[in-house]
Formats: sequence, structure tokens, C-alpha cells
Amino acid sequence: MRVVLKDGVAEFRAVWFEGEKVRMIDQRILPQRFEIVEVGHCKDVANAIKDMTIRGAPSIGAAAAYGMALATLSKMDANEAATILKAARPTANDLFYAVDHMLKSIASGCDPVNEANRYADDIVQRCTMIGENGASLIDDGCSVMTHCNAGALATVDVGTALAPIRMAWYAGKKVFVFVSETRPRLQGMRLTAWELVNEGIPHAIITDGASGHFMKKDVDIIIVGADRIASNGDFANKIGTYEKAVVARELGIPFYVAAPVSSFDFSIDSGDKIPIENRSEGEVTDMEGRRIAPMGSSALNPAFDVTPSKYVRGFITETGVLSPSNIIKMRGDRPAD
Amino acid sequence: MRVVLKDGVAEFRAVWFEGEKVRMIDQRILPQRFEIVEVGHCKDVANAIKDMTIRGAPSIGAAAAYGMALATLSKMDANEAATILKAARPTANDLFYAVDHMLKSIASGCDPVNEANRYADDIVQRCTMIGENGASLIDDGCSVMTHCNAGALATVDVGTALAPIRMAWYAGKKVFVFVSETRPRLQGMRLTAWELVNEGIPHAIITDGASGHFMKKDVDIIIVGADRIASNGDFANKIGTYEKAVVARELGIPFYVAAPVSSFDFSIDSGDKIPIENRSEGEVTDMEGRRIAPMGSSALNPAFDVTPSKYVRGFITETGVLSPSNIIKMRGDRPAD
Repeated sequence: MRVVLKDGVAEFRAVWFEGEKVRMIDQRILPQRFEIVEVGHCKDVANAIKDMTIRGAPSIGAAAAYGMALATLSKMDANEAATILKAARPTANDLFYAVDHMLKSIASGCDPVNEANRYADDIVQRCTMIGENGASLIDDGCSVMTHCNAGALATVDVGTALAPIRMAWYAGKKVFVFVSETRPRLQGMRLTAWELVNEGIPHAIITDGASGHFMKKDVDIIIVGADRIASNGDFANKIGTYEKAVVARELGIPFYVAAPVSSFDFSIDSGDKIPIENRSEGEVTDMEGRRIAPMGSSALNPAFDVTPSKYVRGFITETGVLSPSNIIKMRGDRPAD
Repeated sequence: MRVVLKDGVAEFRAVWFEGEKVRMIDQRILPQRFEIVEVGHCKDVANAIKDMTIRGAPSIGAAAAYGMALATLSKMDANEAATILKAARPTANDLFYAVDHMLKSIASGCDPVNEANRYADDIVQRCTMIGENGASLIDDGCSVMTHCNAGALATVDVGTALAPIRMAWYAGKKVFVFVSETRPRLQGMRLTAWELVNEGIPHAIITDGASGHFMKKDVDIIIVGADRIASNGDFANKIGTYEKAVVARELGIPFYVAAPVSSFDFSIDSGDKIPIENRSEGEVTDMEGRRIAPMGSSALNPAFDVTPSKYVRGFITETGVLSPSNIIKMRGDRPAD
């Protein structure tokens, strides 16, 4: 991804392997500071996923693949490493998908670092195809709404929901992006807006609650990412997605989910089976280290919600744009693992 | 309203007149600090409305009534005072309603302070009736969702949306309140939760985007306030209300608007005519005085949205619970002015 730094423009991935270490952009402190975190042990990769140094389903998958590579290099038991990594966060399918893929590859004698690199490259390639497949949905002069960050930071590079927007922009189309800030951690305001500033793509940050107001007149299409998609097309994504999908259908705005096959979980038949992570209430009650909520109040902080497939116009995948009714076809398109 | 202070419990109104000054609870700094602001000039009342020292449609109305009283005491031209006060904020109907009421009362020779006190007392009385009329909608064991602060702080005392909740609680019913935090200014987290803590009413703060998630299973009824209600029942309320109303109808959750007659504007036939205030983008991009958004990003910050009447199950008013189709009957129930 293109990153504008004080001393010029540079290209980065969200996570990569270099000098026997996993390196990742620290997504907790953007956009105020741009820092690279180095991690040398599988357990520290799990912690980086847990504390959201790295986040976004495909980036979590890639980080976990690198975590498995670190485990192998340090002669750690592969199954123990897999258990530790899988316990980091419960909702995103890519985490389990990547770890299982690495377990099989390691068992079959592949070089673990090469295999993790191949996994990360594969995600980037798939995101590029998602961008190409989705760009035609974005007309010249289009206003797109997105939620949270399903950009390059979330997917090693390129993005899922942001990929079609990038491709449309690169093709010379005028686009405008409504970035819903995405409380409580503000990945929309902090990360998506940062990626759009780096690309020079026009956008405005709005509060999550303002989404419906702007959908009434100003939004042509909504594209979000996904953390896990069930066989029937129900999907989990960042909390706040469900409301946007309902309002979009009410207003006739096409609502798309952009995701690679690694986010599909064909082992569950509906979204009811997706475990939803509840995070600490301090993410809601505190800001910039200071408690805002009254003493005596508590908060509930589910990190994701589930949107039924009936609200989805289509899934933008690396194999094409698919309706909910034919996503089951995706099963055959998963990479061999 | 009951306020739990370090040295005990005290009763307060959001705004009152004492010693030739208007006094108001500073709503910008709650719940961290509880402070009373004293205002001695009509223009300073307008500024306090503008900077949201006092907010909430009925409280704004009462503050404006006291502002007119101050203007009269200082021999200021009543029409000039009215113009200054009406320019403070554009959306809430109560501001215009209260100022026009005071203009007529002053012209007819009423004592201005007595009249403003009567206006404030009248609001409290009407809110009490709203609470009594709405309490029967809240069953024992009910979970209620509300948005922003339509509590005692917003209405001199008692509240509009919070009035039925208070009355149900006082009657011994078990209730649980989902408080959506209400970005950008967090009146839900800062003010509504504070009122509920003071009353001992069980509640949880949630992010605005989590509303839909909790509506799926955990919410029995939604009650919000209103800043202005058009003749056809379309209404403006804090940004984020519209989405909740759409999702509520989708899920079959009854959605109620609690408001006194002063919030009805029969001069406009639909919500399209309600002017929506756009506030500064810093309310979105900055937190606790620190910029969070990337440099180069801008934000859009409408303070209100308009919800069409078709999403409203009923309006809880001082004269009863009315369907959208019969709110026009309210016209005859306005106090003589």
C-alpha cells in the first residue's frame, strides 16, 4: 500500500516476514504514528492479533500463517502453536483457515516461511482480483459508503471493500467515499480515512449513526468486508454493519460484501453459528485513556454483528460477483489445502 | 432530578431562575464534573444554547424563555432578544415556540420572570404526564432502548423518553435500558447514563452501531425524544434515530417518540421542511481535545436526522399516546399563546 511519510512515499504491506521476524504496521496507533512492530515468537503473534496491533480478517490470517512459520523455526510443536493462534480471536474465519492451511503444509514438508509468504501473496492476488471484479460496480461520479477498515491494512495489501474503490479510482473514475467512523475503536476514522488520504481519494468521515441520514440522498452503493461468511450467505462483520444493510435495502441502495474465499466458512449453515467476540467495556467507556462514562455505568461491546444474506446484493470475490444463492459454488474455488 | 453528589443527594432542574440570573447545569462537562453556570444576559443564554451548555429541545425552550425574561429586565428590545435567541440553533421547535410565547406574554403585560417560570413548570408538568401516559407501555422486566438524552437534563426535569422509564421504575417494575452512546457528543453515554446512575436504574451503554445487534434479541421497546415534529408525524431527532427506527420496524419492535406539544410544528407539512443543523467537524475528528482523524481528512456532522412517521408506532404526549395519523389533533391541545 502507498504510505505518505514525512520523507516521501513508500510501499508497505500490513504484515511481512523479514530477518527471521514477523513485521507489521502497528494499527493501534495510526494515524498519529506510523510504526513497525517486530515479533519473533508465535505467542507474540497471537498477542498482536489479540490486542489488535494487526486486525482485519485476511491480515489476521496472514499473521497467523507467519506465526506458524515462526513456531516451526523455533521447533515449537505445530499443534500447540495452532491452538495458541486460533485462540487469539474467535470470529474471523481467516484465522482458522490460515492456521489449518499451514498445519497441512508443514506436515507435508513445505518450507514454512516460503509457504506463509505464498499465503500472504495469495491474499494480495485475490484482493487484486476482488478489486477488478468489483470496480465495474462503481460508476464514474459514484458515492460509496464503507464501514470499519476493509482496506490494505486489513488484508496484507489492496483491501477487500476498498479494492474496487481503489481500482475505480486508478481507472480515472471520480469517486467519493463516506467513511463511517466505526466505534468503539474507530477503524473507519483512523485507518480507512488514512488509506484514502494516502491515495488522495476524496472522502468524508461520518459518525456511525449518520449513515442512514446520508444514505437517504447521497450514497449510490455500499461495500463492506466480512470476517466470516456462512454457507447461506449470512455474514459477520464489524459491529454496525447490520444496521447499514437493513437501511440500504429499505432505501434500495445496493449492498455488497467484498471477501476472499478464506472468509467463507462452509462448515456452518447460517450466521447464527458464528461466535461473536465480546471485547472489554473500556473500549466503549474510555477515550484517549480517560473514562468518559459515569462511574457506576457498564457497557456491552460486541465486536461484530451478523447480517442475514437477504440484505446482500452480491459478494464480490476473486472469482466474480456472486449472489447469496450461488455462493455455495465458492466451495470448489478454495485453494488446495 | 435526583443528583447523587459527593456530599449527598440533591434535587436539581436543568435550568432555573435565581437572583436575577439564569442558572443551568453545564451539560458539556458531565459526568466528570457537576457545575452550575450562571448567566445574566440574554445574549449569554443564546451562547449557552449554541455551545450546548444547555441542550435538549424542551430545556432549550425553557432557557430561551428565561433569556427573554432577562432581556425584559435589562430593558432590551424584546424583538431583538427574540431574534438573537432564535438564531442560536435551527432545528428544535421548542426554541421558537418558547420565544414566541414569551413575546406575546410580555406584550400583554405579564411579569416576564413569572411567565418564564410558569413556562418551565409547565414543561415539567407535561413531562410528568408523558411519563404517566407512557409507563403502561413498559411491562415488568422490559428492556428499553433510547438514544441521545431525552431525560431530565433535556427537559428541565423528568424527561420525555426517560419519563415513562422513570415512572415504570418508580412503580416497581424491573426495567433495563440500552443507552446508545450518541456520537459525536456522546449525550447517551455522558448524560443519559448519568441520569440512570443517579436513579439506580439498570442499564448498559452501547455504541450506536451496536443498536441493531441488540435489537435482534434483547430490546422490547424503543423510546426516543424529538426536536421537531411535522404535521404528518415525520420528526427530527438526534442523528442516529432514523436507522434505529428502520431496524425497529424491520424487526417488529415498537418504536415510540415522546414529546410535549411544544415540539410539534404544525406550520410544516412534512419532515423535509425541518432545517438540519450541521455542526463543526471537530466534534467528529477530535476527542478530548486531540485530533484522531488523519490530517487531510474532513468530516460531515449533521446534528439531527429526520425519521418518516411510518416508522413510528406512537407519540407519547401529555395528552395521551397518539398514532401518527391522529397527531394533527394535537393542534387544539397547545397551551394558549
